[in-house]
Amino acid sequence: MNQKNKVRNVLVSGGTHGNEYTGAFLARHWLKDPSDIQRPSFNTHTLFANPDAFAVCRRYVDRDLNRSFNPSGPLGDGQALELKRAREIEKELRVKCHGELPDVIFDLHTTTAQMGLSLVLTNREPFNILLYAYLRTLFPDVRAYLWEEPSLRPGFLNSLSAQGFAIEVGPVANGVLHAGQVFKTSALVGGCLDFIEKLNSEEEIAVDETVPLFCFKGHADYPRDADGLPAAMIHPSFQGSDFRLLQRGDPVFIDFSGKEILWTEEPAWPVFINEAAYYEKGIAFTLTDCIEVPCCGLRERL
Amino acid sequence: MNQKNKVRNVLVSGGTHGNEYTGAFLARHWLKDPSDIQRPSFNTHTLFANPDAFAVCRRYVDRDLNRSFNPSGPLGDGQALELKRAREIEKELRVKCHGELPDVIFDLHTTTAQMGLSLVLTNREPFNILLYAYLRTLFPDVRAYLWEEPSLRPGFLNSLSAQGFAIEVGPVANGVLHAGQVFKTSALVGGCLDFIEKLNSEEEIAVDETVPLFCFKGHADYPRDADGLPAAMIHPSFQGSDFRLLQRGDPVFIDFSGKEILWTEEPAWPVFINEAAYYEKGIAFTLTDCIEVPCCGLRERL
Repeated sequence: MNQKNKVRNVLVSGGTHGNEYTGAFLARHWLKDPSDIQRPSFNTHTLFANPDAFAVCRRYVDRDLNRSFNPSGPLGDGQALELKRAREIEKELRVKCHGELPDVIFDLHTTTAQMGLSLVLTNREPFNILLYAYLRTLFPDVRAYLWEEPSLRPGFLNSLSAQGFAIEVGPVANGVLHAGQVFKTSALVGGCLDFIEKLNSEEEIAVDETVPLFCFKGHADYPRDADGLPAAMIHPSFQGSDFRLLQRGDPVFIDFSGKEILWTEEPAWPVFINEAAYYEKGIAFTLTDCIEVPCCGLRERL
Repeated sequence: MNQKNKVRNVLVSGGTHGNEYTGAFLARHWLKDPSDIQRPSFNTHTLFANPDAFAVCRRYVDRDLNRSFNPSGPLGDGQALELKRAREIEKELRVKCHGELPDVIFDLHTTTAQMGLSLVLTNREPFNILLYAYLRTLFPDVRAYLWEEPSLRPGFLNSLSAQGFAIEVGPVANGVLHAGQVFKTSALVGGCLDFIEKLNSEEEIAVDETVPLFCFKGHADYPRDADGLPAAMIHPSFQGSDFRLLQRGDPVFIDFSGKEILWTEEPAWPVFINEAAYYEKGIAFTLTDCIEVPCCGLRERL
């Protein structure tokens, strides 16, 4: 990493979804007392992303703020509160970072799925893979899901920067603070910032030879009734099986009369099983392929 | 129980809170296929209580429907959607029950607190205590909380009848179906209906000599910051400790810097620890006294 590639501005954002309290309350805390997220060699900025949605304890007011950003320019000129907020955030960030966008963005989320400590990447940038590998040396149960959905321009807040990702910690209910999950999230953010400090200081960073990466393959929806509502639920034996291989013949759904529905498709590694916010998006769970990504040579490519 | 006291009409309601999916989806299921909740000696009616709130996946639209009923007459003539819905429900029930209200009401709820299988009673009617004692012979981990709050006319839907109660099952996140919890709730309702069938048929009902009853004492709120928001969270070691004795010196809260707050008041048995909907009601948890209630002679008093 040469001098010009040093990280100067890092954004930590929370409350992008107003009912995901971990990030919202951590952002509010760090805005008052940033001592935990400051490091000597770069600036850490904090963003409390959607205070209007937080005030009414909902994911969003008009539309999902985390589908309202676009790295190549604002998403149209719609008047939805979140589209306006996305443009405002981008403007605020450029003021904070002297005309640029942050070099790295970490956006904090919770999920009702049993995702544990997970990262949602939208690209395979060497910076992101190396950071993931470093985090696994600190927190061996961290896993990364690569949400490269070909048909989707996701418009995630963190897609304003190629470096960084969303941090998803669960299971936790919406509108609830779980102290254990809050401190785990905070510790993971601390690990991310330590990594950047080490990079900037040209310290050695030892990681494993490869890391497992769960790569987007497709979504599976609930069976739906005539009203478009789920006609069956995630099967109790499938609930909480995120990142575990799903094989043909495994039960995935059960209807209200107790009838089981088995998996008949190709084996896959599911993620986001039973996420509350995805009922309306037609996603019961997401399917991924698990690949091993080599870590050697990543640092030289930064 | 003489002939005139026989139970003729039972109401099972769900979706009183639109984001508590267990009851909402069970009510929808039973409206289509009531076979599981029919018994020979009485009518079981099903109510899907707040479809408007369900449609937007929120607890309520204008105000809490489960604080909008009044056994001695409708709560004023306000125009809030839920006040109108409460009057409409009462009218509908009187049509279904030939001018009367149901003899017994079971209203299905979920909670983000670790309440397990629990009943929320609003009185000590012999019918309710005996039913609770019977349920404990089927499901030994069922517990009952008696919410006799002196200053409150709670306006619960189930307060339209002195017999019956709310059924609270948790932890489960709002806006999520957990099949395991759904089937537990359904089995508990089945037990309630079997009990009434036994009463009507004058079958013997064997129960323990006493049952533990957790009686309302007061509420404890979060420490609040200048904005009125929680300045601390439920302590990880206190999370999930519903129905377990809280003693002086036990940690109850922890702030975002990790500072613990210990319990300094009288010992008590907490319930509804970290219920999402109670953040706005100023309740971090509720304090109860645990008493043993004798079951002998209850049947003769029906």
